[in-house]
Amino acid sequence: MEIEVLEGVFDANEIIARENRALLDELGAFMLNLMASPGAGKTSFIMKTLEGVAGDLQVAVIEGDIAGKVDSERIAATGVPAIQINTGGSCHLEAKQVNTALNRLDLEGAQLVIVENVGNLVCPAEFKLGEDLKVMILSVAEGHDKPIKYPLMFSESDVLIVNKIDLIPHTDFDMEVLEGTVRKMNPSVEIFKISCRTGEGLGAWTEWLKERVKASG
Amino acid sequence: MEIEVLEGVFDANEIIARENRALLDELGAFMLNLMASPGAGKTSFIMKTLEGVAGDLQVAVIEGDIAGKVDSERIAATGVPAIQINTGGSCHLEAKQVNTALNRLDLEGAQLVIVENVGNLVCPAEFKLGEDLKVMILSVAEGHDKPIKYPLMFSESDVLIVNKIDLIPHTDFDMEVLEGTVRKMNPSVEIFKISCRTGEGLGAWTEWLKERVKASG
Repeated sequence: MEIEVLEGVFDANEIIARENRALLDELGAFMLNLMASPGAGKTSFIMKTLEGVAGDLQVAVIEGDIAGKVDSERIAATGVPAIQINTGGSCHLEAKQVNTALNRLDLEGAQLVIVENVGNLVCPAEFKLGEDLKVMILSVAEGHDKPIKYPLMFSESDVLIVNKIDLIPHTDFDMEVLEGTVRKMNPSVEIFKISCRTGEGLGAWTEWLKERVKASG
Repeated sequence: MEIEVLEGVFDANEIIARENRALLDELGAFMLNLMASPGAGKTSFIMKTLEGVAGDLQVAVIEGDIAGKVDSERIAATGVPAIQINTGGSCHLEAKQVNTALNRLDLEGAQLVIVENVGNLVCPAEFKLGEDLKVMILSVAEGHDKPIKYPLMFSESDVLIVNKIDLIPHTDFDMEVLEGTVRKMNPSVEIFKISCRTGEGLGAWTEWLKERVKASG
């Protein structure tokens, strides 16, 4: 009985995810679903990505949080169209919420829509939003053993961003172990190693993203 | 219709949480529900807590993870009774799972049961397990702004452990801002500042815990 309800939820979500996909195709926009634990650095990563693609890509941002609007205010201050979704307790974004946001944002000319999901390594991986690309961030401070504990997120992501690499000397983080574990679960994953604090590695990521968005357009 | 199902889930959980409470009272055991983001240091914190209370308290550990058993193996290697719950995809522990674990563990003489919840700052705060104490860990690397984004977890916790304080010099973490924000939401919260890596602050925590467990017995 409970399982039937759950299946219903996923089916309903999938239908709206396909509507989002059709809407984005019509606009010619590429959508990126950004997922991570709380505090892995999602918003800072978006800010740095916006800097890196400025002048090349027209971007809009959808911010998902349980509560608050600090993130969307940070983004909007840069002049990029941004909208906040407050899930009011729910631990992930659903396609319906993103649909509402897509319809309210001014997407005239937008080539890239970045969606910041709720900070959570579990449920966001289960709900499609209609995105082109699933990107996850792992902060070095979280440890290299996370793929074993949150396998769905690491298997489903197209891109893994390893953030806060400036902290490696102060932790027991083992990059080789991380990469070995992730590639076994997800051989086609793209991995970028970056620090939003020092700027290291961000150029390679934004160049790759620009090419990817342009190739899809 | 969906809301009714959700209420049903919470009610059913609450009934079993009360059964757990009665079982623990009968045994004279104190139960701690430990919650945090992925990678905040829950298992290392349990290992250090076990060291700190060794000789004073008899402890058992229930490990909750979506998948894997690396954590329970680490605990069991110390000789402490441990059991692993794999939620198989679910982002939080429910009272029923803890009930099964309580009934399978050898709790003869146990004074303290530590439950490590799934790494997630959202849903675990919503599901009572029958615990005496809700303890959450925030890693310095996650940033001092987390209470604004995950208000339920910070409001519901009896104890906030700020872990990885050895990383503070390498981050923009502001302890005063964190404490101010948390105390406004949760005036009675106990805050301990620790580093599982250097051992700093752990003595104050384990002394407080020992007193608390003994006072309840």
